[in-house]
This record gives sequence, structure tokens and C-alpha cells, in this order.
Amino acid sequence: MYFLSDNTATACPEILEAIAQANQGVAKAYGEDDWTQRLDGVLSSYFGTAVRAFPVSTGTAANALSLATVSPPYGAVFAHEDAHIVRDECGACEFFSGGARVTSIAGINGKLTADALQAVLDAAGTSVHQLEPAAVSVTQATEFGTTYRPQELSALTEVARRYKLRTHMDGARFANSVAVLNCHPGDITWRAGIDVLSFGATKNGALNAEAVVFFNLDLIKDFERRRKRAGHLLSKSRYASAQLLAYIQTGAWLRNAQRSNALAQQIAQVAAHRLLFPVEANELFLKLGERHKHTLRTAGFHFHDWRAASRGDTRFVVSWDQPQDSVDALCDALSKLVD
Amino acid sequence: MYFLSDNTATACPEILEAIAQANQGVAKAYGEDDWTQRLDGVLSSYFGTAVRAFPVSTGTAANALSLATVSPPYGAVFAHEDAHIVRDECGACEFFSGGARVTSIAGINGKLTADALQAVLDAAGTSVHQLEPAAVSVTQATEFGTTYRPQELSALTEVARRYKLRTHMDGARFANSVAVLNCHPGDITWRAGIDVLSFGATKNGALNAEAVVFFNLDLIKDFERRRKRAGHLLSKSRYASAQLLAYIQTGAWLRNAQRSNALAQQIAQVAAHRLLFPVEANELFLKLGERHKHTLRTAGFHFHDWRAASRGDTRFVVSWDQPQDSVDALCDALSKLVD
Amino acid sequence: MYFLSDNTATACPEILEAIAQANQGVAKAYGEDDWTQRLDGVLSSYFGTAVRAFPVSTGTAANALSLATVSPPYGAVFAHEDAHIVRDECGACEFFSGGARVTSIAGINGKLTADALQAVLDAAGTSVHQLEPAAVSVTQATEFGTTYRPQELSALTEVARRYKLRTHMDGARFANSVAVLNCHPGDITWRAGIDVLSFGATKNGALNAEAVVFFNLDLIKDFERRRKRAGHLLSKSRYASAQLLAYIQTGAWLRNAQRSNALAQQIAQVAAHRLLFPVEANELFLKLGERHKHTLRTAGFHFHDWRAASRGDTRFVVSWDQPQDSVDALCDALSKLVD
Amino acid sequence: MYFLSDNTATACPEILEAIAQANQGVAKAYGEDDWTQRLDGVLSSYFGTAVRAFPVSTGTAANALSLATVSPPYGAVFAHEDAHIVRDECGACEFFSGGARVTSIAGINGKLTADALQAVLDAAGTSVHQLEPAAVSVTQATEFGTTYRPQELSALTEVARRYKLRTHMDGARFANSVAVLNCHPGDITWRAGIDVLSFGATKNGALNAEAVVFFNLDLIKDFERRRKRAGHLLSKSRYASAQLLAYIQTGAWLRNAQRSNALAQQIAQVAAHRLLFPVEANELFLKLGERHKHTLRTAGFHFHDWRAASRGDTRFVVSWDQPQDSVDALCDALSKLVD
Repeated sequence: MYFLSDNTATACPEILEAIAQANQGVAKAYGEDDWTQRLDGVLSSYFGTAVRAFPVSTGTAANALSLATVSPPYGAVFAHEDAHIVRDECGACEFFSGGARVTSIAGINGKLTADALQAVLDAAGTSVHQLEPAAVSVTQATEFGTTYRPQELSALTEVARRYKLRTHMDGARFANSVAVLNCHPGDITWRAGIDVLSFGATKNGALNAEAVVFFNLDLIKDFERRRKRAGHLLSKSRYASAQLLAYIQTGAWLRNAQRSNALAQQIAQVAAHRLLFPVEANELFLKLGERHKHTLRTAGFHFHDWRAASRGDTRFVVSWDQPQDSVDALCDALSKLVD
Repeated sequence: MYFLSDNTATACPEILEAIAQANQGVAKAYGEDDWTQRLDGVLSSYFGTAVRAFPVSTGTAANALSLATVSPPYGAVFAHEDAHIVRDECGACEFFSGGARVTSIAGINGKLTADALQAVLDAAGTSVHQLEPAAVSVTQATEFGTTYRPQELSALTEVARRYKLRTHMDGARFANSVAVLNCHPGDITWRAGIDVLSFGATKNGALNAEAVVFFNLDLIKDFERRRKRAGHLLSKSRYASAQLLAYIQTGAWLRNAQRSNALAQQIAQVAAHRLLFPVEANELFLKLGERHKHTLRTAGFHFHDWRAASRGDTRFVVSWDQPQDSVDALCDALSKLVD
Repeated sequence: MYFLSDNTATACPEILEAIAQANQGVAKAYGEDDWTQRLDGVLSSYFGTAVRAFPVSTGTAANALSLATVSPPYGAVFAHEDAHIVRDECGACEFFSGGARVTSIAGINGKLTADALQAVLDAAGTSVHQLEPAAVSVTQATEFGTTYRPQELSALTEVARRYKLRTHMDGARFANSVAVLNCHPGDITWRAGIDVLSFGATKNGALNAEAVVFFNLDLIKDFERRRKRAGHLLSKSRYASAQLLAYIQTGAWLRNAQRSNALAQQIAQVAAHRLLFPVEANELFLKLGERHKHTLRTAGFHFHDWRAASRGDTRFVVSWDQPQDSVDALCDALSKLVD
Repeated sequence: MYFLSDNTATACPEILEAIAQANQGVAKAYGEDDWTQRLDGVLSSYFGTAVRAFPVSTGTAANALSLATVSPPYGAVFAHEDAHIVRDECGACEFFSGGARVTSIAGINGKLTADALQAVLDAAGTSVHQLEPAAVSVTQATEFGTTYRPQELSALTEVARRYKLRTHMDGARFANSVAVLNCHPGDITWRAGIDVLSFGATKNGALNAEAVVFFNLDLIKDFERRRKRAGHLLSKSRYASAQLLAYIQTGAWLRNAQRSNALAQQIAQVAAHRLLFPVEANELFLKLGERHKHTLRTAGFHFHDWRAASRGDTRFVVSWDQPQDSVDALCDALSKLVD
């Protein structure tokens, strides 16, 4: 019974069906196919505003290309100290930007706050000796499975705007946040001041497909050549775009996210006293201790130790295709743990 | 009737079937899945020697990651002036390497020769003022649809070795060359002195899957971190690896290439007097002139003007899934042209 | 009366005399002149071991070239959070290395400790998702005017070696540390495990001349091409090398440092209760408060507010050519401040 | 008797005197000193238009910083195939720009022509697959000692403007061209459509001082941070700026160039039938053949073999401080050669 990662999940049937449907006849290469050409329209409808959208195959590519587009090589990009771009992308942002610096900021529950951002910006020098504050990146849902509220985002982006920073959202689990907030996708993006979004689909049912979505259309000037020279312009783009279209148009994006969120809530209810963070997406962080970890693993549950592994912290991720019985079994096992 | 590019083709049934088969159950992320773990073994068998193989989603990524691994930032990479890395990748090699220079060399039929390489190397300075000669890249099949013979490659790589250059092959149409030579895949790679290969599958029936294959295992030291930070380590790697496994193991690689090669030959026979280059893969370059171009286009044939468009040169590419009747129709139309 | 920076000082007579002496006759260009050719020998004697030394014109160049030589683009370079490479070089290390990350570590009195370094390294992931720990950089004297003891450095470099990190010293005020420790230059460099040193001379009496000094000769493989392509190989190298030779051979390096150190001590004695850090070089950090700052500035003293300017912290730097009467006046003024 | 390079020359007395004069009292660091603050004004007068000027210590830095400022990482920079940025800077432009490509164009006498530039631009693709044509760089005087006429430059920059390219001049021997043309410095720069100039002083009498001069003030946006992070912002900038001020204000720039030009003409007259290129600055390229090379070297003359060394081609450079008797001796020796 696996709770290791939503990257271990399968692709959902709507996605596979879309690939099969797209696999007919000749399609122009390098994004000039009909599927890719429809992306802007479909995502503009989805977000309720005019956007430009570009498919790529990984979230790291989406993040790094976005940030290289909004930060000069001599720029500083601000992010939570636990953000994926800080901890898990092997310096992709630094590479794509030509040496920008990702500057970490602490924050509870995996969130940046407007105050913390402002304090860092106030302390940052503005002379030629310091990197130029260029962008702030937030993760939605966060690495700790929490979700920013629209007003939290607006407060952050207002600070950003005041200091002339561009704003990026790493939306690897974007759908989970929309689902938990029961809001419009626009409410936590452009209406909250976000310039560019890494719109994740892979973790939530796609095969390997993400989109970079620009709300601020002034920013895309050099995105396309950057993507090409990074090897992220797919020759047979139709297969990525067809996935993204199906993900939106069939409603899979919301269905899948609602399901994994709901299963996470089911677990959260029996483990409420063990939660390290509020459960607001499809991840749970449980303080278990060594004895309980051992009990659960012996019972066949797979999950990751979390950072302070010596203290017995753990991470459980619920996938869109998580078997219901694995969740029931986990709830049962958790409820039987005796402290 | 489309002869524009093999990138406009569909994926072949063996590939789609493999994706469907892989779409079951939990698989570890980021290349630790069973499919990716089998790649080295299957490709080692295929090439007849121990290799390390890494899936990526585009040929540009395969080329640029390979070359960044074998060239320092202050290195010079030598390639034919019409190579894809020179003309069609928007400086990907320069980007991935941190500023290496791709140095063009002229050569007939799209091929580098050992003599031309040696002449350039002899003329290149070796002081600190010049970039360090680091690698040579050959394309198989070439951009002009010709195929290097094993001895041509050996002669080139011998020069390379004498000047301490690493050797890379851009094998975007590798299978077509193996098919036309009717040789072992090892004969035009490691046995001919190639260190690292961009093993293409996308143009020949895959969805979006290529592999970087190292024959020289000493060179891979930093490849994996480079791939990760370039956003080319797929989270759900199983879907790329399953394609590559099926491509090899079902024999699709050879079947597809043989078919497109044969159709190209069928066309070549009726257009022999118009050929700009020998037809040794699935591409034909025809000197048609404006009048014949117009005739063919009016008849419903799609193809690209080639570079010297004003002189009426054209390119026709035959895909693995090219309808036979489109080829028959083209042959018929070509045979009726009156000069 | 200026205590703003040692970069505001003049060049010392020994340096100007050396330039005049070097200004005769033909000298080979680009470092093949007699002066540059003597550098290795003179610096090898100075350090008591075989070194390779390369002149450059700024400390930022020395640091960034050193670190790019010892860190791959996907490497992490560890440094104190107040280090010059962190705060004052506009991302030079990131630029020269092709996107390495400078990772900050906190530490009292501006110093890294072996324990803190080890803790960070233990927490750093080692997978392909994280940057590869590559190097540690220490500043001697530190940004807070303190000086590492040989055993502090040895403890740090021992941790570094255990984790396969290279070790760099930013010696912008190296002479001041040797002077205060009254030690051999080798004691705080190669004997303490340092691989490469940015040997500063500019702040201590040179015109614009620093040297990159390699103690670990295995590391210089690609340094020279990196320097050339960074525009730091001087065509008329004799003028930089002559400065460095004179700096060492006339004893100016030690005389100048001893003088500025001694004047700093003179000030420290009257301001002992206001010191934010121990005074172990030519810088003093004084907690003055707004009222005293005002008093001193009104009296004609120039100095910088330190970071927590709102709390009234200040920095005073004593230059090698600091007028004695300016120091006497400052001591007098400080001693008259009434809290 | 040395004719190897003007980089082997001394600094002229006006320059040394200016350094000595500047070596008094406190001066603000990092370019805020009085000397550097005066540069813009003095160079604006010199060029007859408002400019911004920034001192750096090498011509390679001036060129690469200029080009990185006007070309994006995905840009193509066009230059003569024998330009210094192509042959002698170890890929500095590629490094500073983050992977732009320097594209070579052939041209007689070391010059680019408007027609050749246009032909290359017409042939260059404009899709996302090709680098974006970004800038053209010309060298004045050229690497072959010839000088562009104002109308030649205007024709080139008009093509550049039509294709939205920025224009850069590598003026390592700028003064020699002004001297030979007997024109106003503005005539071969901004009046001829140049956006940014590497204004060389080192070869013509400075110690190690060049300036980047922007005529197009819109372009300097990010120059200063690029310079800082490249380690080319001198802490004691006064010493570089004082040289540049003296170079202009004492008239040394013109006197020195006129002298070396005149000596080159003296040689040219006795070697007219051996000249490979017109002599329009301080360099001569002579077809000597092995026998005559041997004769001259035996007689004590030092000079470089030129590229086609096997054919006996040679380069002679006359420095600003070239002893008259060395020129007389060379003329005498040349006139005695019997073919």
C-alpha cells in the first residue's frame, strides 16, 4: 500500500484516451498542431482571462523556464526555504537564468508571508553589488500540503509589485488547491496578482505534461526561444497538448484532485493529533515516532520519512488513483496505534 | 499528401500499446521504475556492449546534454555546417555547456570527413586565447539524408582521438541508417569509435522519447545532475522508458525505418535525375524548379522548399506511417513532370 | 577624516615604484613577461610550498574564478551568510560557475565553524535532485574584522575533506590576519588545508592587483582558459605582477597590515565597551547609537552605518595610509562620548 | 628589435603621471571617485555627443560585456571571421552572454561588408529554431591593420538597423583609425550608427585601461550589474579612470597613434610589393617567404609568423614607443632583401 508520491501514480483514462485520439493523421510539428493551437483558448476560458500557454514535460522545466523569463541573470528570486526550486531541482533556476540566485525565506506551514517578503526586500541592498530583486515564487499547494488563500497571495503580490518583482506560482498541485478552496482558478492566480504559473498536470493524472501559463502577456517575449534551446519544445507537441486539453475539458483535473483531497481528509480525521501541518491538499505529514513507523511499515504501508527522520516525522501522499482500500486500511491502522 | 517531416507522423501501435501496458500500478518516480531500470540491459544487448542509457523527451535535449557532458564551457564542438545542432536548436549546445562554441565545417552530402576535421584542428590554435577543441558531433543519418559508412566514421573518430576530442553522434534518424546499411547497431557507434549517441525514436514511431546512450562509461559522471537541472528527468519516467523498450524489443525500430527507407527508394527511382544527394535514409532532396513545385503543390503534395528556395530545391520526408498511396501518387506525379 | 573603506586608500610608494621600474622596454604580453613568470617562485617562497599564482585585477574576479574552478555548475558552495561572495559580488560566483549555488551558513563573529558546516552537509541531500556539495569558502580576515585561528581552519577543512569539498579562502585582507596572528602565511592556508586562495593586495596598498594562488596544483587544469574568457588575463600583465612582487618582496604587505591593525587597536582600546566584534584586523564595528553617530559625523568623521542602522551600529575601517592624526582625533572623540 | 605586438609596449609618461597624480588622498571606491565621475563628460566632449563610459581593464572584458549587454543568451552576434572575438578571446562573448553564438562572416582585408552581412541575415532563419540575430561587431582598425571608412560603417549599420541588430565596435586600435582617417572620433562611431564601443587605450599607451562607451543610452540598463558580477568593477577605479582621462586630455591618444601609424607607413614604403593588406594603422602583414624571414630574424628582428606560416606570411606591429632606430633598421633590412 503506497503513499510515497503522486509521481508514482498512473495516468488517468481520460489522458490515455486523449493520446489515442490524437494519434491519427498528420499533425504539424513543434507546436503548430491543432491541439497546441487550441491550448491558449481553452486555458483562457479556464482561467477567465486571456493567457498564453506552453506545454513542457516536467515541472522543473516549467518552473525554471518561467523564472528565467522573469529574472535577469543578475536577479534574485525569492522563495520559501522548502520550495521545490530551492530543494529539489538541482539548481535548475540558476542554470536556466544564467546564474540568478534563489534566495530562501522561512515561513510556517510552508508559506511565504507578505511581511517576511517585505522584511527580506527591505534588508536587501539595491546597489550594483547586490543581485537585483527580480521575482518571487510561491508554491500552490505548498511542499507541506497547505494552500494559500487568495488574500494571502494578494498580500504577497502587492509587496512584490511595490518592489517591482515579478510573481511566479509553482502549481505542481494547483488543482488540489482549487479543489480545497472551492474557488475559481483565476482567484488564486491572476486575480491574486500572479504573472506566470507552472500549471501541473502530471501528479494529478497526466502522463508527463505541464504547462507554463502567462497571465502577464508582456513577459513572454523571449520564452519561446528559451524553451527551444532548453530542449523543451516537443517535436510531436500534439501528445502533450492533447493531454492538457483533456485534463481541462473532461473535468479530470478537478475530479482527480477532489478524490485525492477527500482521501487525505479521511486519513487526517483519524490522525488529527499527529498532524504536523493542516491538511489542505493531498499530502499529510504525521509525527509518528519510530515505534509507530515500524508498526505501519510492518503492516505493508510505504511512506517517506520526513526531514527530521530521527524524530519520527513522516510524509504520506495520496494519489489520484489511490485504491480506496489502501486508505481504509491506513485509517484503520492509524486508529489502532497506541501512544 | 504530406511529405513535410517525420515529426508530423503518429506514434506506432507498439508504442501506444507499451504505454497502456505501463499504465498499471505504482511505479517509482524519477527513473527508479522497473522500465527505466531495464533500459541499460536492453540497450546493451541491442548495441552488443555495455552501455548506460538515459531517456529524455527531445532530440535537442539529447544532443545538448550529451555535448555539455563531453565539452567544458570553454570547449569547441565541431560539426557539419548543416548539422541540427548548428542550424535548428537555437543554441542549445551553447546553453547547456555554459558557452561552448559550435564550430561549423563544410562537407559534401552533409558529411564531415576525416581530412576536413583534421585540417580544422590543425588550424585551430591551442593557446589559452582559443577555445579548447573538445568534441566532434556527426549526424546519422545526415541532414541531407545520407548515411556515414562505418569506415568513414572510424576515420573521423581516429582523427578525433588523436586530438583528444570526444565523439558524439546525433542519431535522430539512427534506425534509418542501420536499415540502409543492413549493419549491426554497434558497427556505426562504439565499434566506429563513438563515445555517446543521441538515440532517436520520436521521428521513427515513438511519441516523444529519445535516449542518450553512453558507450564510454567514464563520461557519465555529471550527466545525471545536468539532466535533472535541465528539467529532463521525467517524474513518470516509466512512460518514456516503456516506449524505448518496446521500440527495441518489438522490432518496430527496424520495421518502421525499413518501410520509410523503402518508400523513399521508390520515389528516388522515378526522380533519380533530380536528386541533390544520394538517398540513403527516408529523406529526398529534389531539384524541381518553380514550375514543377507549383504543379506538385497544385496536385495536393505538401513538402518544404529547401534552402536555395529561389532555385527551386525541395525536401521530401517519408514517415514511418506514410500512406502507400501517397507515395504511389507522388511517384506518378513525378514521372509525369516534363522538363 | 575617513574611515569608510580601505578601498578608498592610495597605493603605497613601493607599488608605484615597482610600476615605474616595470615600465621599461619590451615585455611579452599576456603573462609571458618576466615579472609574471617570477610570481610562482616568489609566492612559493612566501607560502613555503610550491604554488601556482595568477594575477587578476579584482577580488571578485579572484573569488569567482577560484570557485568556478573548484565547483561544477551543479555544485553548492558553502559560505558564511555575511561573506563577500554572498552579499557583495552581485552573484559573481553563480555567473562564473554557470549556475552553482552559494549556500549561506550562519556563524558568530563572521566565522563558519566546523560543526555548523558539518550540520549543513549532513542535512543536504545527496541525490540527483540536490546540488552537489562542492566547496567551502572562508574569508580571512572575516567581514566582521575577525581572524580565523589555524586550528579553526583545520577543523573546517577536515570536515570539508571528509565530504569531498574543495576549500577556498577569500583573502581580501589576508595580510591583516597574518599580522594579527604573527604566524607564517602557510599556517593559515595550505597547512590548514586550504586548496586555493584569493590573495588580496589592493586594500592593503596595491593599485588594482590580486592573485589567485593554488596550493592544490591538481585543480588548475581549466583555470587559465576560464580567466581568459572572463577577460581577466591582462595583456600587459607585467604591471599587475610587478605590483604583487613588490608587495611581497619589499615587505610592504606586512608593514602596511601591521600599521592599519595597530591603529585599529588604538581605537579599540578607547571603544572597548562599544565593540560588536573582537578587533583582529583593520576593521571596527561599534555600537554607537544615533546620538553618538551624529556627534562624530558633525565632528568630521566619515564612516558607514552598519546593517542594523536603525540600532545605531557602525563600521570603521582603517587604511594602510590612514593619517595618524585622524586616528588620534577619533580616539579623542570616542573617549569623550557620554552614554 | 621587436615588432611582435603593441601589447608588449610600455605605458606612456602621460599615463604614469596621471596615476601618480591620482594617488593622493581618499577617493570613493567602486567608481564613485572624482576621476570616474568625470569620464562621461570628457568622453562626451571627445565624441561630440552624450555618452556613458565605463572603465574596465581588458579589451576582452570590454567586448564581451558590450555584447552581453546587447545580445540575449539566444542571440547571434555577427563578426568578421578573423575578429578578435572570434579567434582570440576563448569564447568570452559566449560566456558573458550566457551562450550567444558568434557567427563568422568572410570579407576581404579583414572587413565586413554591408552586402555580406545582408546576405547572411537573409539566409538566417527567423523561427524559434534559430538564434535571434542580435548584434553585429566590427573591429576598427581591423585585425589586418585596415580601417573602415565612415561610409562603409554607415552602410553596415544601416543593414543592421533594418534587421534590428545592435552595433558594436571593437576599438582596440581605435585611435589609429582616427589618426589615419584624420576624422572626428564621432565620424566612425555614433555618426556612423555604432551603439557601443570598446574604446581601447592599452595598446596605445595605457597601462591596462579600456572603456566601454555607450552611444545608445537605452542599452546600458543592465551593464553595470553585468560588469560587477564579472569582476570588472575596479574597487580603486580612480587609477583606471585617471589613465583614460589623461589619455584623452593630454592628446596622448592621437600623438601615440600618429607616431605608430607614421612608422608603419615608413616601413610600408620600402615593402610595398610585399604587403598582404593596405597599411592603414600600425600593423603590417608582409609576404616574406622562408628565406627572407630567416634573414630578418638572424639580423635581430622579432615578428610573428602569420597564419599561413608555411607560405611565409608575417605580421609586424609598430608600438607607440617603437624606437625610431628599430624602424630605420627594419626598413634598411627590408630594402636589401633580394627576391
